[in-house]
Amino acid sequence: MADHPARLRRAAEQMSAHGVDALLLGPGADLRYLIGYDPPPLERLTLLVVRADATATLVLPALEEELARHAGLPEQVTVAAHGETDDAYALVHRALGDAQAGRLAVGDRLWTMFTLALQDQLPQARWALASTVTSRLRAIKEPAEIAALREAGAAIDRVHQRLPGLLAPGRTEAEVARDVAAAIVEEGHEQVSFVIVAAGPNAASPHHESGSRRLRDGDPVLVDIGGMRDGYGSDCTRNYVLGEPPADYAQAYARLREAQEAAVTAIAPGVTSGAVDAAARDRLAAAGLAEAFVHRTGHGIGLEEHEAPWIAPGGETLLEPGMVFSVEPGVYLPDRWGMRLEDIVVVTEQGAESLNRLPHDLVRV
Amino acid sequence: MADHPARLRRAAEQMSAHGVDALLLGPGADLRYLIGYDPPPLERLTLLVVRADATATLVLPALEEELARHAGLPEQVTVAAHGETDDAYALVHRALGDAQAGRLAVGDRLWTMFTLALQDQLPQARWALASTVTSRLRAIKEPAEIAALREAGAAIDRVHQRLPGLLAPGRTEAEVARDVAAAIVEEGHEQVSFVIVAAGPNAASPHHESGSRRLRDGDPVLVDIGGMRDGYGSDCTRNYVLGEPPADYAQAYARLREAQEAAVTAIAPGVTSGAVDAAARDRLAAAGLAEAFVHRTGHGIGLEEHEAPWIAPGGETLLEPGMVFSVEPGVYLPDRWGMRLEDIVVVTEQGAESLNRLPHDLVRV
Repeated sequence: MADHPARLRRAAEQMSAHGVDALLLGPGADLRYLIGYDPPPLERLTLLVVRADATATLVLPALEEELARHAGLPEQVTVAAHGETDDAYALVHRALGDAQAGRLAVGDRLWTMFTLALQDQLPQARWALASTVTSRLRAIKEPAEIAALREAGAAIDRVHQRLPGLLAPGRTEAEVARDVAAAIVEEGHEQVSFVIVAAGPNAASPHHESGSRRLRDGDPVLVDIGGMRDGYGSDCTRNYVLGEPPADYAQAYARLREAQEAAVTAIAPGVTSGAVDAAARDRLAAAGLAEAFVHRTGHGIGLEEHEAPWIAPGGETLLEPGMVFSVEPGVYLPDRWGMRLEDIVVVTEQGAESLNRLPHDLVRV
Repeated sequence: MADHPARLRRAAEQMSAHGVDALLLGPGADLRYLIGYDPPPLERLTLLVVRADATATLVLPALEEELARHAGLPEQVTVAAHGETDDAYALVHRALGDAQAGRLAVGDRLWTMFTLALQDQLPQARWALASTVTSRLRAIKEPAEIAALREAGAAIDRVHQRLPGLLAPGRTEAEVARDVAAAIVEEGHEQVSFVIVAAGPNAASPHHESGSRRLRDGDPVLVDIGGMRDGYGSDCTRNYVLGEPPADYAQAYARLREAQEAAVTAIAPGVTSGAVDAAARDRLAAAGLAEAFVHRTGHGIGLEEHEAPWIAPGGETLLEPGMVFSVEPGVYLPDRWGMRLEDIVVVTEQGAESLNRLPHDLVRV
């Protein structure tokens, strides 16, 4: 069980360090992180107003008041419920007090319909993003969070172990994807986040949507999958091949594997996120594959599938023990094939520990 | 197959009618409606800029360009892709041209991280919500959309038909909910939107989260479920009872049923949304249950589970043929029980047609 009162106090410290007078958070990961409440994201206003003294008001629809109380809110949180015809923004006004003329940090994913209404109601405020306050807090995982991410990683590994039995010539990407989605749930996730099954040239599109293409002999197949388990994300990519792959594919895969492993080896406390990206990128560039690596090396993962830290060119985030992110370089040749090798890693005192444990070999089916 | 070029032209007409110089839409229902593209909602900027002449620019991450082209974009749309280290907002700037000093209507659910960046980059603009332009367009469904909603309604009806076999003393709400979620997919939805299984006093919380309570003899059980089928939503609530319900429950249920049916009977072209709400509310008030009906009577449904029109007290929307919404009055007695009866209906030339066809009787298990 997370210590939400302590998290609220740490958030208040970050607010004061960053000149933020109040946090305004809708449904989503920040709200869940700070108070353990996960409301449905709907059109009625749910907004947590966190003040500089670490007390907070949860403005919510009256018909969800019982739901929130049932979640076990931390002691610092007061509930302010609005009925169907009440003015919900008047409650926000009251909760802000003097802070309404200050610098307000709004949830990064709050719907714009709420933000424009807040801007209209609070004309004196200056606006910032909540990630200013929350992203560093959330980026450094507590031991229980790392344990949850480890379980999610083991669960997605078990799904990948089932892949060779699901890939066969004649099956469509979409048929395989449907079976994979079922396996993600069967292996312990409460939710499927995404399933990318990309065969042959389709894998050259990094976010390909699994479709009607039938697998055929000689196809390389990229499988990138993830779900949420006990509220924390998994995300892992492996590469399969039906029979014999194209000769240049196998050669490039060897280089990709070296690049992924070089990036993981580069990880240590105090190293920049940009240096980890460069470790993978430089290896691929040395192999003449710089142009074929069209995205960043990785992204943080936790309560969201994509969150800080970002492992990208020029990134200046200093890595710290407890940070968890993906290391996933890729090589994409349009109209030919694509490949990506991805593990989730946690930064340790010594370096990095991978939460995905399956071998990095190309899997021949 | 939807006629996206025609939808873009209708959107442009609405823009000019409402003094909007450009629409700025992120991933979500408006984007899907106008151009048929359904990108993953991630942290890289995807933004459709629709101009007053019905031409548009789709700004997107380069690694999703293939995904977008594969979706078959309408002829009026130009693609502008940004690489991992490019300035995506420069592309928005260019796509806007002169409109950057005008009135810009931003997607209602666009993440605030993008909206604050847009406000920063476009200091001369005035801001509005995209629903100003899109909600009336989307509220009046085309025949193919009504057909899709009808199929979704039939699919969720089949799930409700399976409920008596899933409800038994000793099972927990969460166990039933898991089976219901599987049935929602088995009956033809690609996605589960929500599953509320609320037994006994838990049903007094309208958005109750299915939990550890075990069903017992005499429990009334509220089951409100929905999913997405071919991109369109289903949403239906029925009430079950294990054995004999409390006496006041059965009496109130008879009043609830009359209220739901009175609201459906009130529906016709030209009637206000508020009059439909009043038809249900007045019936319940006459039975002394005004205080127990704590929410509005309904919400539109289509590409989103909740969208315009809103069927609420005082609502001034004039109903038109092709509008589709829920009619779902409820009665909630805290610490005792709760009930809600919900069908999705489509407004016809003559009145209303229900897309959910199961009887309104209390279902005894």
